[in-house]
Amino acid sequence: MRDFLPVDVRKRNYVIGIIKEVYESYGFEPLETPAVENIETLLGKYGEEGNQLVFKILKRGAKLAEVAELQSDRVAEGSNSETPQHRNSENSLADLALRYDLTVPLARVVANNKNDLPKFFKRYQIQPVWRADRPARGRFREFYQCDVDAIGSKSMIVEAELIFAVSEILTKLGFDDFMIRLNHRKILKGILETSGIKEELHTDALIILDKRDKITAEEIRAEFEKKHIPLDGVDRWLKFVNRINKKRSENASEQTLRESNQEVANTLADFLKDHQEGLSGLDELEKIWNLSEQLSEEPHIGIELLLARGLSYYTGAIMEIDLREGNFNISLGGGGRYDGLIGMFGKEQIPACGFSLGLERILVVMEERGMFPAEIAESTPADVMVTIWNDDTVADSLKLASELREQGLRVTLYPEADKLGKQFKYADSIKVPFVCVLGETEIAEGTVTVKNLSSGDQRSVERRSVAMVIKEGENSHQR
Amino acid sequence: MRDFLPVDVRKRNYVIGIIKEVYESYGFEPLETPAVENIETLLGKYGEEGNQLVFKILKRGAKLAEVAELQSDRVAEGSNSETPQHRNSENSLADLALRYDLTVPLARVVANNKNDLPKFFKRYQIQPVWRADRPARGRFREFYQCDVDAIGSKSMIVEAELIFAVSEILTKLGFDDFMIRLNHRKILKGILETSGIKEELHTDALIILDKRDKITAEEIRAEFEKKHIPLDGVDRWLKFVNRINKKRSENASEQTLRESNQEVANTLADFLKDHQEGLSGLDELEKIWNLSEQLSEEPHIGIELLLARGLSYYTGAIMEIDLREGNFNISLGGGGRYDGLIGMFGKEQIPACGFSLGLERILVVMEERGMFPAEIAESTPADVMVTIWNDDTVADSLKLASELREQGLRVTLYPEADKLGKQFKYADSIKVPFVCVLGETEIAEGTVTVKNLSSGDQRSVERRSVAMVIKEGENSHQR
Repeated sequence: MRDFLPVDVRKRNYVIGIIKEVYESYGFEPLETPAVENIETLLGKYGEEGNQLVFKILKRGAKLAEVAELQSDRVAEGSNSETPQHRNSENSLADLALRYDLTVPLARVVANNKNDLPKFFKRYQIQPVWRADRPARGRFREFYQCDVDAIGSKSMIVEAELIFAVSEILTKLGFDDFMIRLNHRKILKGILETSGIKEELHTDALIILDKRDKITAEEIRAEFEKKHIPLDGVDRWLKFVNRINKKRSENASEQTLRESNQEVANTLADFLKDHQEGLSGLDELEKIWNLSEQLSEEPHIGIELLLARGLSYYTGAIMEIDLREGNFNISLGGGGRYDGLIGMFGKEQIPACGFSLGLERILVVMEERGMFPAEIAESTPADVMVTIWNDDTVADSLKLASELREQGLRVTLYPEADKLGKQFKYADSIKVPFVCVLGETEIAEGTVTVKNLSSGDQRSVERRSVAMVIKEGENSHQR
Repeated sequence: MRDFLPVDVRKRNYVIGIIKEVYESYGFEPLETPAVENIETLLGKYGEEGNQLVFKILKRGAKLAEVAELQSDRVAEGSNSETPQHRNSENSLADLALRYDLTVPLARVVANNKNDLPKFFKRYQIQPVWRADRPARGRFREFYQCDVDAIGSKSMIVEAELIFAVSEILTKLGFDDFMIRLNHRKILKGILETSGIKEELHTDALIILDKRDKITAEEIRAEFEKKHIPLDGVDRWLKFVNRINKKRSENASEQTLRESNQEVANTLADFLKDHQEGLSGLDELEKIWNLSEQLSEEPHIGIELLLARGLSYYTGAIMEIDLREGNFNISLGGGGRYDGLIGMFGKEQIPACGFSLGLERILVVMEERGMFPAEIAESTPADVMVTIWNDDTVADSLKLASELREQGLRVTLYPEADKLGKQFKYADSIKVPFVCVLGETEIAEGTVTVKNLSSGDQRSVERRSVAMVIKEGENSHQR
């Protein structure tokens, strides 16, 4: 987990600012939930691997003492401390856990506040989540998710609007090479069943598939074998997907994305034969990409039949936004429809669909590509520094700083009487563009000596004109 | 811990926005640290009670298994599970902990990044902290602190500037009845020693004193007795303070605050006789209030000899900002000088001083007093809602929504084709001021029917003028 020094925070806030602005322009409203959730709220929502990665908070005081005593008794009675005991101990020692994503807390909030929320609740949420994962490039144990979700409708207009909003954010940040990949849990189910893989193995199969970018084809096969998923079924499936992808890349130069998607859809419809659920998933995807043609003439949207997404709560369309970098795809975010999750927290099933942008990934790529505007990358802590001449003039300097602030400047005051050279050296080190000197002569004359640190110009200015001179200097510098 | 629905988040962001703006106008820069710290970083910094209130995170995987095994062995060897064992178990089961305040993480950051930070580092930080405390009015287990700290100088100009900044924030938020209370750890030390209380009992005495607003005088005496602090010394001290306070309230109508402070200072100087450290503390306080006269002609600053502040890391001036409500003081924040804390994380002692505003307290009082501006309290999720006529016109509605957004409006789209009555009912429920209807006639004619929901006016508008009509309507509504 990392500290963010001022220059980092400014870059993060710049990106978050654009994300908020776009989400709000689509009518999404802000929601915030606590970092800490009851452990039962989180466990069982993210699959077995997710359970392991949740940070758990130790019980406190009497409750902890109780558990410890219980366990001592058990051990004293001769039960051994093998794995099942440990797992039990882990869950009995903790009662709270750190937020693992923003979707499960949203589902809890919607279920608990049904009557206070509008029929269609459109919310965004930009907060950190925590996973006890191994850190990697752009992956951290504390990271921010920028989620946007629409609750209450099964219409594919929701998916289309989420794709619009997220695409607009990336465009405003300066990305022009992103690709939206779509798949559908019902299509995946259709392919798996048509390939002869039984339903109880589907979750495992999807989780393995979701790692396709991180591990080799050999490792994938080994994982399938470990989970007793029949390899002939898997092979049939992978062969089908490879055939589609090969054909698609052969035709890439002649076909539009739309034509390519249509062709994939046709081939897929043949493969699914009369698997009704799979075909209905395909139908939904077609609706989504038809609507997204309103976004631009040639939207960068493609079916991606190996897209699975690891989380177990998705039920419909699943989406990911990728950047192509060399031979790799970098995912900047993803999401999908989860019509069953809210019902796990309340009596009513409420349909929902959402998208999550990963702030850290976006920042890493923007940094590498030098995409931050100069005023963010080179920002300074203040517009001007006011010096302190000696102990007797402190009050005068405080007053000058206060006057300049009232006129809208950001003013930092050197915190003590010191040699003027040292004060200028400090001003240089924090890169403020202007320094004001207020010595005994200036005080007597009602003037201030203003020095422009980048040009080296220094001149005596009437006190009431100081703010104006600095503002003009800043503007001319920007030009 | 609480969820914040949209109206709550908007209020929080309004207050945070003003706090950031003022801190930045003083040249403070943003810093963010992770929610999770190593447990050793936090333990021992907040006193014994603080240690208990830190949320601790369970070790994971192999590390946890190791500890559990070790403990089973110990229990099997016949050691019992009394309190010391539990405490040991608590600390051995956890390796991480949730941030308890923003000052200790800052000290760690400064010690670790000495060479990357300016000589005087002025930072602000607005993030949540967590304490396993009993919740009360305006006190929660997750709450935001809005901290501002200046690192690197021992000058009292720092204290004065912090008081300026925090006062300006409260004034901008609309508070006009706050009072800044000052005391000094060296004065407290002087009073305690002069009262015959030995140095090793000072920490306990200050912690008990810090509860004076929460418990009765009898309970305070009982706590002193429990800690074996000689009651005759305590009585001498409390009598002295009561005498001062009585005299002050008698003179309240005739004296300015400045005169009253001066009189307290004189009486205190007599009491401290030649306790040099205590007198130097008093001298520092006098400097602070002299400088704060630059803030206003009659700054609301008073010496408060019973102010102790619970945290153990303070070494110099301590400060609190209170509101008077009936017979109670509500503290909106506090701070002080901690010249020894950073040295606990690095080789070098670096002086530091800071102030922390409690966001939750501020929000509770602003809510009770109705201090939020109307545009925050009554804000809506969007400026306009676009309806959907039928399944064939979805693309047209998407396009209209997108056009209006491009012209700077916040636009929400009804997410599905539905009866128009239902769509209007929804628009009413989320309180959008305008609704656009785009039916087949409108599409054919290149118009949009715009309805103003508050006046009930409805008229046909040329498509390219829709945004303008809505903006004008919003302005006239505000007037």
